[in-house]
Formats: sequence, structure tokens, C-alpha cells
Amino acid sequence: MTVFDVSPRSTDLRERLSAFMAEHIYPNEAEIARQINTGDRWQHLPLIDELKPRAQEAGLWNLFLPPASSRDGKYGAGLSNLEYAGLCEIMGRVWWAPEVFNCSAPDTGNMEVLSRYGTPEQQEQWLIPLLNGEIRSAFSMTEPDVASSDATNIQSSITRDGEDYVINGEKWWTSGAGDPRCVISIFMGKTEPQAERHLQQSMILVPLDAPGVTKERMLTVFGYDDAPHGHAQMGFKDVRVPATNMLLGEGRGFEIAQGRLGPGRIHHCMRLIGQAERALELMVQRASQRVAFGKTLLGHQHVREAIAESRMEIDQARLLTMNAAHMMDTVGNKAARGQIAAIKVVAPNVALRVIDRAIQVYGGAGVSQDTPLAMMYAQARTLRLADGPDIVHAETVAKVEIGRQGVGGSRSA
Amino acid sequence: MTVFDVSPRSTDLRERLSAFMAEHIYPNEAEIARQINTGDRWQHLPLIDELKPRAQEAGLWNLFLPPASSRDGKYGAGLSNLEYAGLCEIMGRVWWAPEVFNCSAPDTGNMEVLSRYGTPEQQEQWLIPLLNGEIRSAFSMTEPDVASSDATNIQSSITRDGEDYVINGEKWWTSGAGDPRCVISIFMGKTEPQAERHLQQSMILVPLDAPGVTKERMLTVFGYDDAPHGHAQMGFKDVRVPATNMLLGEGRGFEIAQGRLGPGRIHHCMRLIGQAERALELMVQRASQRVAFGKTLLGHQHVREAIAESRMEIDQARLLTMNAAHMMDTVGNKAARGQIAAIKVVAPNVALRVIDRAIQVYGGAGVSQDTPLAMMYAQARTLRLADGPDIVHAETVAKVEIGRQGVGGSRSA
Amino acid sequence: MTVFDVSPRSTDLRERLSAFMAEHIYPNEAEIARQINTGDRWQHLPLIDELKPRAQEAGLWNLFLPPASSRDGKYGAGLSNLEYAGLCEIMGRVWWAPEVFNCSAPDTGNMEVLSRYGTPEQQEQWLIPLLNGEIRSAFSMTEPDVASSDATNIQSSITRDGEDYVINGEKWWTSGAGDPRCVISIFMGKTEPQAERHLQQSMILVPLDAPGVTKERMLTVFGYDDAPHGHAQMGFKDVRVPATNMLLGEGRGFEIAQGRLGPGRIHHCMRLIGQAERALELMVQRASQRVAFGKTLLGHQHVREAIAESRMEIDQARLLTMNAAHMMDTVGNKAARGQIAAIKVVAPNVALRVIDRAIQVYGGAGVSQDTPLAMMYAQARTLRLADGPDIVHAETVAKVEIGRQGVGGSRSA
Amino acid sequence: MTVFDVSPRSTDLRERLSAFMAEHIYPNEAEIARQINTGDRWQHLPLIDELKPRAQEAGLWNLFLPPASSRDGKYGAGLSNLEYAGLCEIMGRVWWAPEVFNCSAPDTGNMEVLSRYGTPEQQEQWLIPLLNGEIRSAFSMTEPDVASSDATNIQSSITRDGEDYVINGEKWWTSGAGDPRCVISIFMGKTEPQAERHLQQSMILVPLDAPGVTKERMLTVFGYDDAPHGHAQMGFKDVRVPATNMLLGEGRGFEIAQGRLGPGRIHHCMRLIGQAERALELMVQRASQRVAFGKTLLGHQHVREAIAESRMEIDQARLLTMNAAHMMDTVGNKAARGQIAAIKVVAPNVALRVIDRAIQVYGGAGVSQDTPLAMMYAQARTLRLADGPDIVHAETVAKVEIGRQGVGGSRSA
Repeated sequence: MTVFDVSPRSTDLRERLSAFMAEHIYPNEAEIARQINTGDRWQHLPLIDELKPRAQEAGLWNLFLPPASSRDGKYGAGLSNLEYAGLCEIMGRVWWAPEVFNCSAPDTGNMEVLSRYGTPEQQEQWLIPLLNGEIRSAFSMTEPDVASSDATNIQSSITRDGEDYVINGEKWWTSGAGDPRCVISIFMGKTEPQAERHLQQSMILVPLDAPGVTKERMLTVFGYDDAPHGHAQMGFKDVRVPATNMLLGEGRGFEIAQGRLGPGRIHHCMRLIGQAERALELMVQRASQRVAFGKTLLGHQHVREAIAESRMEIDQARLLTMNAAHMMDTVGNKAARGQIAAIKVVAPNVALRVIDRAIQVYGGAGVSQDTPLAMMYAQARTLRLADGPDIVHAETVAKVEIGRQGVGGSRSA
Repeated sequence: MTVFDVSPRSTDLRERLSAFMAEHIYPNEAEIARQINTGDRWQHLPLIDELKPRAQEAGLWNLFLPPASSRDGKYGAGLSNLEYAGLCEIMGRVWWAPEVFNCSAPDTGNMEVLSRYGTPEQQEQWLIPLLNGEIRSAFSMTEPDVASSDATNIQSSITRDGEDYVINGEKWWTSGAGDPRCVISIFMGKTEPQAERHLQQSMILVPLDAPGVTKERMLTVFGYDDAPHGHAQMGFKDVRVPATNMLLGEGRGFEIAQGRLGPGRIHHCMRLIGQAERALELMVQRASQRVAFGKTLLGHQHVREAIAESRMEIDQARLLTMNAAHMMDTVGNKAARGQIAAIKVVAPNVALRVIDRAIQVYGGAGVSQDTPLAMMYAQARTLRLADGPDIVHAETVAKVEIGRQGVGGSRSA
Repeated sequence: MTVFDVSPRSTDLRERLSAFMAEHIYPNEAEIARQINTGDRWQHLPLIDELKPRAQEAGLWNLFLPPASSRDGKYGAGLSNLEYAGLCEIMGRVWWAPEVFNCSAPDTGNMEVLSRYGTPEQQEQWLIPLLNGEIRSAFSMTEPDVASSDATNIQSSITRDGEDYVINGEKWWTSGAGDPRCVISIFMGKTEPQAERHLQQSMILVPLDAPGVTKERMLTVFGYDDAPHGHAQMGFKDVRVPATNMLLGEGRGFEIAQGRLGPGRIHHCMRLIGQAERALELMVQRASQRVAFGKTLLGHQHVREAIAESRMEIDQARLLTMNAAHMMDTVGNKAARGQIAAIKVVAPNVALRVIDRAIQVYGGAGVSQDTPLAMMYAQARTLRLADGPDIVHAETVAKVEIGRQGVGGSRSA
Repeated sequence: MTVFDVSPRSTDLRERLSAFMAEHIYPNEAEIARQINTGDRWQHLPLIDELKPRAQEAGLWNLFLPPASSRDGKYGAGLSNLEYAGLCEIMGRVWWAPEVFNCSAPDTGNMEVLSRYGTPEQQEQWLIPLLNGEIRSAFSMTEPDVASSDATNIQSSITRDGEDYVINGEKWWTSGAGDPRCVISIFMGKTEPQAERHLQQSMILVPLDAPGVTKERMLTVFGYDDAPHGHAQMGFKDVRVPATNMLLGEGRGFEIAQGRLGPGRIHHCMRLIGQAERALELMVQRASQRVAFGKTLLGHQHVREAIAESRMEIDQARLLTMNAAHMMDTVGNKAARGQIAAIKVVAPNVALRVIDRAIQVYGGAGVSQDTPLAMMYAQARTLRLADGPDIVHAETVAKVEIGRQGVGGSRSA
């Protein structure tokens, strides 16, 4: 319980979500692992399909969709960022759970973009099936040949040619592209290489079955292929899409990216906090059972310190993230950009430290397939890189702070 | 701005307090330093006496006093822990400021004890002059010969003898005892050495001019004597006080100590956060002015990282502390004991890291008398020891967490 | 160059080994990856077989074998621990390189055990083919159901029955057992459960084709299966081996384990330092090529700090490890046990920090199959667990220090 | 014992020095504290004067002086940097001990400069009395108004005027200037402001009783004034000295500074390691005596970890420093500049961590005058700033590493 438990609706949803996790998610972790490791790794998992209607029936579907995008409550729960944050943490405790609730990345961000910036036709064709959980989507931004931490480096081209755009480029870390149901990607590239830096890029919808789109290889993350979703390196060679696939307009790619970022970071960070809580629970459980040198591991002060450190770090990271969500809800993403940058640094690092301590308490089991810890570590580690490395966000925090002090020049020394 | 800005009253007080600091405190820092270093170091500072009536007039007096102790608003502001926390941070920005508002330790804790547990006579004699800022008080608990982190180690004796108690023992770190106006101390010692461990100790009021009380020497903290308050080592040899000086009753020392701890920790931690904010401001200011290798220090990424790290750590520590205050207000000190223990570990360590970074940015000036940083560091360092070392509080955090998980046994693995 | 470059022979070997690495190992890294990922993952790699005779011809074979075990120079180079340490670092730069030189774990430790404690018959049957690189071997110690950090926890049984011993137990992390050429394991288990704690365990040679030996499953490390060597969980059910397979005698398992540990730790640590050096080189190379925000990554102070930190940590870890090797050579493993414990804590942690920084500089490529970094990280992470977790070794360091001070009681306070 | 125990002469000196410390230094720590705190704080300490002849008799005088400067052994021991390093550690265990052996900063650096670059007249006038311990000296480089981490910032002027130079400038952190026997300072300032950056500065000998030299105030370090040596802020206003006081020649200030730096850093770092060893000893002693929660502090795993961490960090820092000394002896200061920069970062940080842990074990006594720990901390903290902040040296380490890799371009990726 924290000061952030303000909305009865949010509390109610949290309780129902936890109950669903206890009934349908945790008991199925082994079965999901079995399904992934049986037969073709790149097939959709049947169990997920079974669980999705149950989540819909339970009213736990599309919880991520913010009020402005919920079409008068027709879609989504219309929760504030703060309200959704607590739910995101719970779903994040099991890596495959968010999909069951149609709340998994990058679909959530893509649905938001389509909801805010899509034409009615684009929404009909892509948003509705996504909201219904019938298809999945990808986001093609990062490129292998440049430092994408500096988004102006992106080299792919989107060139107008009559009624079409012609797309060329090489993208990687296109997450989710391994899933056969992933049929559409939001693609970022340059429409106007000569324009001012932040007006060069556009975003356009690219069907993944369009001629010229090639799934070149799947990337691994610390040895994991993350099947069946996976992370693809993809080639786009003279790919033609109708000009109507453009999102918002030429040169507005950065503008869309900015709007997409804030909520996505809250989601990522709260899921990481869910992972960290899970790791802490696993640590305490193991430590209460294993015996070394004549006492349980809980009897060793070293382990108790690991538990205490983890609790203190998680609580701080959660409060920081929820406060950022609250700021977004009250003063807007732009005014909250320092807070949003801060959680992007803090949450992955806290999760990594907590998971690492849990691994250490488990010993060999901790790095193996016998616990979810090693996979959690690998995923959390990528979040110190994905969507900008730590240092880029730290620079934003510093910039905001320096600016704030400049304004507050009358402050005492 | 955070989610904790809930009360208009608290917001109003914060603004008025900041204005008072800007008008009367910051501009007088040099003068206070001058008064301390001129003549007898152990005299009360005239400037503090001049400022106190101004604080009273401004309605910024005894802000610490909680509703239950404010005597229907006659004394104190009746603020919740959460409301007061934000004010405590502001006062904490300058080490001598809290006294101006009659909000300095250990007086605040002593006034609370007297307010909650004192007899009408004890209150008349000691509480009223303390609330009026006419006298000051001390707290005599820690002993030089034992590890006081384990409070059951305390060896001093309080022995009934007719209408009196006879007190013997050696105490140190009796802070504030250097001030000539410090005339009374709350003294902890054993009344019943054979009783169950937590019923052995009592607290009693001991006038510092009682025969047998000796101020043996003043302790230094990293070279600072902290005059004119100071930290005394004191001998108590066959000191007689009337039996009516006993607080609450024999054997109830631990009970009083427990009640005293929660708010005191919030205060200490929020003052530390105020110190850390101050250090961060100083760091940014210096970095914007000094030039090295052809650019200002702000132009060096290393310094910007120090700023970002500091901002992220401070914000987390503040949220954790405010959340602990909120828990105390809503579920009570006992249920919030894990949160209270956590801030006692987190806040001093965060403050030390931030201050240390500021020192590094200042170079030689940072360790000297030319900035408040070195003194801030020394004070913050003692708070990793005072009122229990880090490890003792980390053990509490671990214990609460392990207990919580034991209850939540149905949680998934 | 360090003070440890004392032996011309060691310098000469180092140069020749580096030349071999440059000619035969680094250029073949991609080919090895290809061979592993083509066809049956659990087949011996042809390229390794091609390179082994070249290493033999180059006089870079069995370099690990210490003087006492080299049979008058017939086998091995007869190098001191200090001399071999520097070579071990070079081989460790590529994870599959040590096998090319017949210097890979756990064969090296097993060969040493057989060389020091084996009977002539045991040596003829197992040591000679191992020294010739014709077979490989495993070490079966850790068990899944107990905290093996406390070696007295080991539960497997070795029971005398006529001319045989009957072996029962469950072992895991039997590294190398995936390789079809791995035909023999040194197995640790209890012969005398009622004896004094350190006399309960024995070590015995168990052929892996003996009836009752089952390879139950292969464990993953993060997502890596480490094919074709791998880490097996193995069942031993009523396995019969001739009584002559016992090593040294019943109840002497701990004694053998002790003798085995020292050199093995030097090897592991120096290989880790080799990995860290490799990671640092990769970091500098990438940083010199990638451009972000208008300059190469080397132009960002943050990256230069990562380089400097890495250099300072690696140099310290290397000196500590070489000094431990020197102590083993001069005062013996027992007197050097504090130093040996220290490197087991320091080296993996330093390697992890350096590799992690390199990953961060690489971004997405760093966690993928495009660099060796993620796999290096996974391997280094297990070395904070394998052969005892950090805390067990830290306890040894503390114990030695406390003992030393006890002896040095005349030291001043 | 380490690999560096190579010279019997060094071993012999170390034993004799340790014996002297045990007989004359440790037993007198309380008396020195008493003498400092009695009467005029800025008088030379009589006890030091008593001990100096004893050190001379014991052949433990001017040990710092390198072979090239020892005038055929007439002065100093002619020890290599590596040999002297171990002695420096021992002297460093007590802050006032080096002066007893005429090995204290900044005299040692000044004597080296005079020995290497002084004219016979300069040597006669200043070097001989310094070598005899009859006078003391200062070094005036850092200025309050500029970032002296960038030495080109130095603003003071040295202007030729006939047979004199006229000196103007403001200096601070002129350490040792509080001592009445401190009669001469080496002063750095600009002779040729228009010259190439590294040829602008010169060094000149300035008697402290010259008209125009003012000791403006003494700086504190944390709260310590470090009497009777102290750290002065000094004004130089139209100070005239004979042109013969110039050292080496106009424009050669940087050249002298460079030569002075290497040995000085070894000395500082080894003294810090001595301090850290002392702190570790104190920590173990206290932990073996104090009881908390039913066992000695050594019985708490947390404390044992503090001991182990300290031992591991100290040993690494010592090996790094001794290796740097060895490199200086064998390949020269310039080739060893990366190693020299590294120890300047590592040693103070290690010392601070170890001392901080010791303070925590001591509790209140640790920050007070009852142990040397708080003063040790304050002194070590300044060494993260003095002679360049950490980041400046880290940049050097990075630069050397990047250069090394550039050269070693044939290294594998």
C-alpha cells in the first residue's frame, strides 16, 4: 500500500487482476515453457489463445488504453497512467502474461499511435484487429549500422512515388516479428533528408507480407531467441505501400515518437518492477528452504541484507515511476520529461540488481532454466539499451535539472 | 511537485517557510559563522534569538507538533507527518535554521514525549518553556562503553530511594548539552535489571544542574565541535531527582523510545533531503561558473552525470520518506516500521553521496570552511550511526519482508 | 608488462601463444560458431580437432601441468603457477581456445588429480589418453537438492560391495558431459556417513558408459546450452565400478578436493581476466567507430570513464591473481588460501563489470550473437556461483585476516 | 608477502622501520594529540624534535631520496621507488610519523626538485637545511579563483625586473605553511603569458618572510585545522626575490612539475595504503571486543564482509601502486604515466572505503577524537582532489589505453 492507492476503481482492478494471475497465469508457467520447447518454436502458443477470452470475460482486456483513446469506453478501460501503472506491475510478473490481457509491447504503443494519429481507414484495417487481439504488430526503428541512441542517425528512406511510398532500409530488434500473426509494422525512415533534423523522419504502416520485406534472421538475447515472438533483423528493399499508409504526415515521425514514449516507459518500468518483486519473492522462498552451514539461508545475515536492499530499491523505483505517471496525468508528458527519463534509468538497474541477488541465492538453479531468473535478467538488461541507453536519459535528467536551477536563479547558495 | 502535494494548508506553509528562509536564513549564514567563531564558542548565538520572534510572528513556530499533542491548536500547527515532512526538508537546508522555528532535535522529540507522556506538573515545568523556546533540552541514551545499537546493552542505573531516584551512569553524544540554555535531559537507564529485557529500562527527567551531573568533555565530529550546541560526554554520579520526574512509569523506557522514534526519523531524513537538495544546487551553481579545459564544468559529461545521479537519488529518497510519513499517518507507526527503517538507511546514504559529489565539483573549497558541504557531510555521516547503524535498520526491513512473505504464502513461485 | 614478467621462458611462451592465437584462433571464431549451429549440436567440432595437432607441434600443449606432475618433462611444460597464469589469460580470451591446447576445464583439474593421486593402472587407462587429448572427462560433485556451497551437504553414496563400489546419487552441472568423447568422470560421494565431517567423502572414477549412469537433461546458462560440451544433470543408480577405481582411498575426497582447488582457481581467474581484456579491446574498437551526437563514442567522456575504470580494475585483478599464484609457488596453497579465496571473489566480479560496460557501448549488438560479449557475461556470471558463491570465499578472506591479526597481537591500535 | 619483496635491503629497512614505529611512534600518539591541543596550536611539536635524532641514529632518515639525488649516498638511502614504497606505507600509518623520518610532504618533493634542478647556491641555502630537518618548506601552486585541475589556468605572475623577479598572486592550500619553521616556498606562476601553453609557467624560490608575503588565513579540512602545519591561503603582493631564485629557467615550470609528480603520487598512495591497513586493524580489534545482540561484532557476517572487502581492496591497491613504482624504476615515469594516474584514482578511494567501514564498526567513537579514523578520512578525502581530481587522472588512464589499442591495431576483434 502506498500513497498512490487513490482510486477505488484501480484498487478493484488490481485485486481482480491478481486473482486472475493466481488462477490462470502462475499455474501455467511450466506449460508455456513446454509449449515453447515442443515442435516448431515459431508458432503461436495455444495456451495464450485459450486464456485471452477468459481475460476478456473478466474485464481485464486492453487495460492500457488511455481515456482519450478509448472511444468513449468502447475500447479499453480509460485508466489514467497512474491507475494503469499498478496493473502493469502485476502483469509484468510473468513475461508472457501481458499478451493474455492484450497489453503487450509493442502492440500497446502501436495501438496508441493508431488511435491518436490514424485515419479512420487505418484504424479500421489495423487498430480494430489489434484491439481484438486478432493480429499482432511490430515497430521498426532501430538500425544495425548506426548508433540509434541518437535517433537522427536513422538512415532508412521513405520516398514518394506516385500514389505509393517506396521504402528501403535495414532494421533490427524488430521485436515480435517472429510470431506468424505479426502482420503489420510501424516503420520509421527519412522522407526529407534535407529538412531540419527533427522534421526529416516519418512513420508509415508497412504490411510484413509486402514484397521486398525479408525476415533475415532472428537475434538472440543472452542466448535466448524469445520464441515465438523473437527479435528480427529485417530487410526492406523497394517495398511499396500506398501513400495512405503514412501516419499523420511526412516529417512528423519525431512528433509521433515523442507522444509514444512516455506511456511506454511507464509500462516497461512497471513491468520491470513486477519482475523485481517476483525475483524478491523467489529469493525469500529459496532462502527459507535451503540449508547451508547448519542454518537456512535466511539465517545468514548476508542474505537478509540482500532482501533488505532489494525491498528498499524496489519501493523507491516504484514510487518514482508512479510519481512520473502522476506527473504525466497532471502536468503532461513534456513537463514530466525529466521524471520519465529518470525512471528509464532507475527501473532497469534496480531490477537487474534484485534479479542478480536472487540468482546468487539460487546458485546454479538461478542461471538455468529451472527458474525464470536468468531470462528475466536478460530481458531487463536489454532495457538499459532499448529506447536509448542509460546515459542518454541521464543527460535528459541533468538538462532538466540545470534548466530548473537556471530559472530558480534567486535560490540561495 | 509530487503526488504528495495534497493539502493546500501544507502548500501554503511551504511557500511561507521558503519565503522566510530566503529573507532571514540564507542571507545570515555568514553572520552565524562569524558569531560562532568570535569569542566564547559556547555561548548562545544572538542572531538566533533575534530571528525566533520573527518566526513566531510569521506563524512558523512549533510546526512539528502533531495534532494529538497540539492542545487544540494552542501549540503547534497540528500537521500530519506527511504535511510536516515537506516543511522539515526546507528547514533542513541550513543546519541552524530548525532552531529558529523551534523545530530542532532533540527538543522536538523531547517535547513530543512530554506532551504525550508527561504529567501536568512535568509539562508545566519543562514542556511550556520548551514550546516557548526559552530553554533547550537533551537526550541521554547512548553510552561509551557498550554497543548502543543494541539498546538492551544500556548500563546506567536509576534506583528508587525513598522519594527520589538515584542516577548513575556515563553517557555520551548528549547533543545540545553545550548550549548554556540546555537545562534538562531525558535520561534512559535501568530500573529493573532482572526484568524481561524490554521492561528493564526507564526514562526520567534530570536537570543538568543537579549535583553529580558533570559535563566531562565535548566530542568532535570530523573535527567539528558543533558549538555552541555540541555533543557532550557526561557523567552522572549519585544524582538525585524527585520520584515525580519519572516518565510514564518504571520499566516503560522502551515503550517511550518506540513512540519517539518514528517521527524523529522522518524529521532527520527530510532534513537530510533538504541538505542533499542544497548540495545539488551548490553543485550546479559552481559547475556553471568554473571553467576547466576550455569549457564550464557543466560542459563536462562527468559533472552532468553527477547532477543526474543526484537528482534521481534525491527524488527516490524523498518519495520513500514521504510515503513512510503517509503510512504513519494512515496505518500507524507499528505497521509502518519497515518503511521507517528503510528511510533511516536510505536518506543518510543518499545525502552523503550527493554531498560528496558536490565536494568533488568544488575541489579544495568543498572540504574547507568556504562552503557548508564538509560540515553537511560530517553531520550526515553521523546519521548512519546515530539512532542505530544502517545494518540494524536493514535487519528490520528484512524481517518485515520475510514476515510479509510468510503471510502471503499463497503467492506463486 | 608488470613486475611479474620474471621468467624468459614464460615470456617466450607468451609470445608464441599470442602468435598462435592470432594465426589460428581469432580468425576461426566465426567458423566455430557456424559448426556449432549446424547439424547435431552435440557433436565434437571438427575444427578443434584440426587445430590440436598444430598446437602440439608448436609446443603449446599441456602447458598447465605443474613440474611435480610432468613426469620429468615427458608431459607438460613444468611451469610454475605464476608462469602458467600469464598463458592462461591469453588462452582465456576465446572461450573454446583452451581445448585446442589441451588446457580446458575440467580436464586440467582431473589430469592433475590423476597425476598426483592416481595408481599406475588408473594413469595408464585414463591419464595418458587425457594428456594426449584423445578423450575428455567430467567432474561430478554438485547436487541439485542441497546447497553445495557447503560441501558437507553432498548426499551421493559410494558403498563397498565385494570387489566393487556401488554408486547412487543425483548430480548436476557436470560440465563437458555433452561431448561424446567425454567418457570418464571423477565422482564425489559419501563412503562413511558416520565419520568426522571431513572424512565422510571419497572420490572415485566412474566411466560414463557404466550401466545405471543416465544423462537426464542438459542445463542452460542464461539461454546458452554451451553445446557441444554442455552442462548435464546426471543420474547414478546402482552404478558398479571396480574397487580399484577409488582415488587415494576412502574418506580422502576432501583432501583431493583441496589440492585440486588452488590451481583451478588461478586458471579460472586468469581466463576471466583474458575475457575482460578482450571485452575492453572490443569496447575501445567499437567506441572508436560508432558516432552519436556528432562525435565518436570515444568523444563521450562517459565512455572514456568506462574504459579507464575497466583498465584500473583489470590491472588490479591481474596483479592480485598473479600474486596469489606466486604465493602458491613460494609458500604453498595452504598459506596462500586467503589470497586464493580473494581472487575467486574479485576476478569474476571485475570481468562482469567490464563485459557489462562493453555491452552497453555496443548497444543491441552487445546482447546478441553478433559479439561474444553476452556469452562471456553468462559464463563469468556462473563463476560467482561455481566452486562456491562469493560469500563463502569472502568468509575465508575474513577468517584469514582475523587470524592474522590475532597472531599479530602486538600491532599497534 | 608479495612478489615485490625482492630486495634484502628493503626487507631489512622495513623491519627496522616497523620496530621504530612500535617503539617510538604508536606509543606517542596520545602525547602528540595532547601537545597539539595545549597552548598555541601553531607551535612546532617538541616531541617530534625529540624523535628526529633517534630516527637519524637508527639510519631511518631521508629514506625517500632516490639514487640520483643522494649525492653518492651522502644523503638519503638511494632506494628505488619500489623499495621506498613499502617503507612509505609503514610511515603513513600515523599521520605525523613521516616528519620524524624527514619524509613528509611537501618537503620530500621540494628536496627532490632542489636536488635535481637547484643551483649549488640554492642547494646550499635551502636543500642542506631541509635534508638536515632544520627548516620546512611549502609548495605554492593552487589558486582559489580558478580550476587548478587544469594547471594552465594558473594566474599568478612572476615578472623580471632588473636583478629581481616580482611576484604577484593569490595561492591557497599551501600546506605546512602554519609551521613557524616553514621558511621557503616553491612558487609557480606565469613568466611568459604569451608563450605556448606549457611554456608559460615557471617555478621560483620565495622566502616566506619576504615583504609582501601574507598568510591570510588557515583553511580547514572538514573541521580540522591540521595544526601546527595547516593549510594556508597566502597573498603575494609585489614580492621581490633575486633572479637567482629561479629554478631551472623561465618557462620550465611544467617540466619541473612533471618530474615531481610521479614519486609524489607513489608516496601519497602508499601512505594511504598504510592508513587503510591501520583502519582495517582498528576495525578488527574493535569488532573482536564489542558485543551486540549476544555476540561480538566479529560474529556478525556483515562485519566479516567489511573485513574481507577491505582486505581485498587494499591488497589490490598496494599491488597496483608497487607495480607503478616498479614501472617507474624500469621504464621511466613517462612510459608509466598510465599506471601513475591509475593509482592516484584507486588508492584514495580504497582508503576512504576502508576507513568508512571502520568508522561504521566503531559507531560514535569512529567520527570523534577517540580514534584517528575521522581525521584519516578527512585527509584521504582531500587526496581525491589534491593534485588533480579523480576524473582528470581517469582521463589519462583512458588516453593511454586508447593509444595503446591504436598501436596494437593488429589485435583481434
